[in-house]
Amino acid sequence: MSKSRIHNLFVSLDGYAAGEEVTADKPIGDAQALFADFDGRFIHGLGPVDAPVTLDRVLSTTWGQGIGAEIMGRGKFGPQTGPWPEDDWRGWWGDEPPFRTPVFVLTHYPRPEIAFDNGTVFHFVDADPAEALRLAQKAADGQDVRIGGGPQTYRQFLAADLVDSMHIVTVPIVLGHGNPLWEGLGGIEQRFDIETFASPSGRTHQIWNRTGR
Amino acid sequence: MSKSRIHNLFVSLDGYAAGEEVTADKPIGDAQALFADFDGRFIHGLGPVDAPVTLDRVLSTTWGQGIGAEIMGRGKFGPQTGPWPEDDWRGWWGDEPPFRTPVFVLTHYPRPEIAFDNGTVFHFVDADPAEALRLAQKAADGQDVRIGGGPQTYRQFLAADLVDSMHIVTVPIVLGHGNPLWEGLGGIEQRFDIETFASPSGRTHQIWNRTGR
Repeated sequence: MSKSRIHNLFVSLDGYAAGEEVTADKPIGDAQALFADFDGRFIHGLGPVDAPVTLDRVLSTTWGQGIGAEIMGRGKFGPQTGPWPEDDWRGWWGDEPPFRTPVFVLTHYPRPEIAFDNGTVFHFVDADPAEALRLAQKAADGQDVRIGGGPQTYRQFLAADLVDSMHIVTVPIVLGHGNPLWEGLGGIEQRFDIETFASPSGRTHQIWNRTGR
Repeated sequence: MSKSRIHNLFVSLDGYAAGEEVTADKPIGDAQALFADFDGRFIHGLGPVDAPVTLDRVLSTTWGQGIGAEIMGRGKFGPQTGPWPEDDWRGWWGDEPPFRTPVFVLTHYPRPEIAFDNGTVFHFVDADPAEALRLAQKAADGQDVRIGGGPQTYRQFLAADLVDSMHIVTVPIVLGHGNPLWEGLGGIEQRFDIETFASPSGRTHQIWNRTGR
């Protein structure tokens, strides 16, 4: 079964998972503090990284395990809104986007795909969550699909009951404002079995598994 | 740098990491209870396994990440002692040993290597820990080396200060007797930075990182 998974979802104590406004300078708006201690080198595993092994890092290594495609919101791909401008924007990540798989970018403005040498291919699709998941699962070829955010995309897939497992990291900071992860999702926890545990770093981790799947 | 790593080292509250006697029926002697809840399906990652994600399982996925070779004691390969009998013993694991890399088996009785289709090759070497690690690092070709146990092998490599990181799982059981992990290692903790955290399962995990490496 190709599962739908969320990884490394960082959220503040007051429930914000990103800032309100994404700009070319600020990919996650005024919420950079959420990711201040996130070490992105570990998303492809412990091996190549010459740094101590910690619980937080081990958990982040699950990001790429057995993943064959990602789905992301348009705001994660870039700061543009409305019709695409004629520019050479190819995402925030330069020539080496970390995904290395097909990536389905949800947008009301489809455009031609963008492919990179490392296996990353951005497909721009105007689709609801269920249809996007079907496309991504087909592309994943038996592997799992990662729901990659941002917060609006997480909310849409959770509301549509299309998430099998989810790893949340609660960071002990209070942002005061931002993009609220849980808006409109009251009672969502009842559909999941949830493990909660503390990290020596001060963060709290949760692993949610959809009950009965 | 090719690091030397220990993963999924299960130990009882009274400090035993295996039973005293290994026989063909009991690969870890009278200490099977240590591994009663260990789900070996996760050692190669979350992807192919259709089961809920838990903290314990996530930690076990580190076993194979970036590993290019393993070193094990002879008792982990089989129950024989002394000169090798003329039998067709090829390890406990059937036709699909989980290692998928070169494996260096420490023995005073060298013998020809045994190769499997999945990449596992058992090499039988009469070497001290430092020499075995050199051989394994060369075979690992830039990747890390796993020190795979059993307890005597763990003790030898820890005593020789040849371990860069170590993941220990303390299982809340009292075995009463067995193979003592910590024998002769008084004060060993002073060479490491140690993270300790509890799992919802009741186990306690520790991640040790050699200080200054």
